[in-house]
Amino acid sequence: MSIESAVDGDALRRDVERTAAFGAVDSETGRGRTALPTDVANTQARDYFVERLEAAGLDVRVDAVGNIAGCWTPESADPDAAPVATGSHLDSVPRGGIFDGVLGVYAALEAVRSLQRRDVAPSRPIDVVCFTGEEGTRFADGVLGSTVASGKRGVEETLALSDGDVTLESALSEAGYRGTGRLDASAWDSWLELHIEQTTRLGDAGVPLGIVTDITGTARCHVTIDGEADHSGTTGMGERRDALAAASELVLAVEEHASDAAADGSGTAVGTVGRLDVEPNTVNVVPGSVSLRLDLRSVERPEIRTQLDTVKRVLDDLETERGVETTFDCDYDVPPTPLSERCRRIVADAARARGVETAAVHSGAGHDTMQVADVTDAALLFVASENGHSHSPKECADWADCTAATRVLADAIADLATTDDH
Amino acid sequence: MSIESAVDGDALRRDVERTAAFGAVDSETGRGRTALPTDVANTQARDYFVERLEAAGLDVRVDAVGNIAGCWTPESADPDAAPVATGSHLDSVPRGGIFDGVLGVYAALEAVRSLQRRDVAPSRPIDVVCFTGEEGTRFADGVLGSTVASGKRGVEETLALSDGDVTLESALSEAGYRGTGRLDASAWDSWLELHIEQTTRLGDAGVPLGIVTDITGTARCHVTIDGEADHSGTTGMGERRDALAAASELVLAVEEHASDAAADGSGTAVGTVGRLDVEPNTVNVVPGSVSLRLDLRSVERPEIRTQLDTVKRVLDDLETERGVETTFDCDYDVPPTPLSERCRRIVADAARARGVETAAVHSGAGHDTMQVADVTDAALLFVASENGHSHSPKECADWADCTAATRVLADAIADLATTDDH
Repeated sequence: MSIESAVDGDALRRDVERTAAFGAVDSETGRGRTALPTDVANTQARDYFVERLEAAGLDVRVDAVGNIAGCWTPESADPDAAPVATGSHLDSVPRGGIFDGVLGVYAALEAVRSLQRRDVAPSRPIDVVCFTGEEGTRFADGVLGSTVASGKRGVEETLALSDGDVTLESALSEAGYRGTGRLDASAWDSWLELHIEQTTRLGDAGVPLGIVTDITGTARCHVTIDGEADHSGTTGMGERRDALAAASELVLAVEEHASDAAADGSGTAVGTVGRLDVEPNTVNVVPGSVSLRLDLRSVERPEIRTQLDTVKRVLDDLETERGVETTFDCDYDVPPTPLSERCRRIVADAARARGVETAAVHSGAGHDTMQVADVTDAALLFVASENGHSHSPKECADWADCTAATRVLADAIADLATTDDH
Repeated sequence: MSIESAVDGDALRRDVERTAAFGAVDSETGRGRTALPTDVANTQARDYFVERLEAAGLDVRVDAVGNIAGCWTPESADPDAAPVATGSHLDSVPRGGIFDGVLGVYAALEAVRSLQRRDVAPSRPIDVVCFTGEEGTRFADGVLGSTVASGKRGVEETLALSDGDVTLESALSEAGYRGTGRLDASAWDSWLELHIEQTTRLGDAGVPLGIVTDITGTARCHVTIDGEADHSGTTGMGERRDALAAASELVLAVEEHASDAAADGSGTAVGTVGRLDVEPNTVNVVPGSVSLRLDLRSVERPEIRTQLDTVKRVLDDLETERGVETTFDCDYDVPPTPLSERCRRIVADAARARGVETAAVHSGAGHDTMQVADVTDAALLFVASENGHSHSPKECADWADCTAATRVLADAIADLATTDDH
């Protein structure tokens, strides 16, 4: 493919940076944003996205759970053909980076704009997609919108999810993104997602673009530990059932076991206690109860299983040795996901034709792609991170790499949308 | 003293239970309340107290930091004589018990009412006192009002204390308890505080009343641990600076050292991490920073010092071994307080005359009395706790014990207020 790509790196950057302004946070070390599903910043980001889709002449559709798709159906395309879809998400973690999700959404849009400029004549429609609630910070544990689009959770059930105060349905209605119907990923010919890499492998290797072979499996658990709230001055050390001391043993056990598993096994195991809340959490009361959220991953499912077994064993020991009561609930358990060989080959061919170096990597993070991959051919592309930081204002990618990756994405989309031999 | 005490146990109970209704919390295991300084429940409790003081004919005065005193100056008393003061506090910890503080305030008032009924003719005025903010849950680390009354912190400085949102001054003004002047404990002849015991020693021994010899010393520290917030799925175990894992080591070290000190030393050492807050505290982010509040006690000051040294050593080790940054600030350091022999003797004599069994105990908790004891003769009386639970809805005392203790308190006050031989 010797044709000019027509990808406008400046336009891509403007869209990403404009989105970064919604929910921008103070940081001395980089640019960050907080945009939780349906909050003001997330809604501003959605509004801007819809505006940009319409400016590119795409037909915008919002489904019942707030997934947004802008469909390009040029005259060359059979409107009934299975579309090629591409995109990512516009929500963030609290104080997250500006590339995570946003880059994939606007690389998708810029790819389509570049195909329009090049007068490419695809035979399939092309959908530019933003999924709702990828990060799992509100309403659900993550990949909310793609779980619905892949048919794994029903629309009504999803709309009834609550953040403790409001349901997703009322929050979406309030934000103006409670649409109708359901984006159906199984109807897509194929799916491509571009995302910033969230570790240093590509950056360290000086490779701008990664083609993901497998997405890690992830299990998430709620753990509660109930001891006895009592006076910190008058309750002797031997009389205590301190929920925080018990929880501290669990935190260290999760860390130790994952470190051992990473050293001995596939090298991909990680285990984290990301959230811990103490009750009553006041200086002069022995902590009475603690709730924790655990996140356990590996590309090898048995390595997740042994992490879960370790947690349960530690909780049993804490009950016996400290007299606390515990609960354990693994409410999110997504197995590792291998990605489509067809899509990976088309992406690799496109990169080779553009002279963009690639590497095969695995993804330590979950992505909407892992949901979509269960119902259609899907690939995930990584742009190198400059420092590996993610979910942090320090997250950073080189704009030239982003542009190069978008060129590859555009060519791969064009290939998928004009090839019928699969 | 063979005269009827005239103490009305039912009136005492009514006042305590009425106060328990302000800020009452749901609990299956007992009656609890939440009444933080100047909140609605605390203000309702103050309003009711003022009403009860006035109903007993006492002159009510509110000082600049919200300390309340109801003064009884019968005709027999020299209005310029140093008063005998007695009382406690009406604030609670979150989900605290209904006796802590409240019992001492209303035992003081019932004692005065009983002296009125008996036509006792004291030569000194008697002040019934409620101190502001004893528990240290808001604006300061505890014994806020008595710190001002004992001259250890200035009025202006205290009014400027903030809970992060508002100053004490504006909160007091809003609640209607920003009075004038300063209650001056050094002007009191003596001070008696009755309080529920906060452990099981008296209850286990079947003794209704304890006479405290020493109040424990207490050091409180703020600790912060800063690591690096990063993606929980893509940051390898060896690349992390997990602030919560580091904090967990500190929690366990505090527990272990205090347990060792309690076993080897005076038997009174306790160490607690009562508060721990994680940032950003979300499931899929490695914790970036943690702040902790520590509470370290003993009746032997060197045992507090070695606990503080342990904390500093652990923080140094965490910096070296985990690459985290830490801060340490010991902003509250009250030494152990021996109590007045004169007051203790008078209380013991009164108990003996009433046939109420007593035991000499130490206090593992700080009390306003430790502030007052630095500027005048002071004693602290404990009513047996039925189960040792404190700062919890499970806190419970026998009403008959409360009445017996109030009889002793009344007689001791009468003795102090009519005796000039000290």
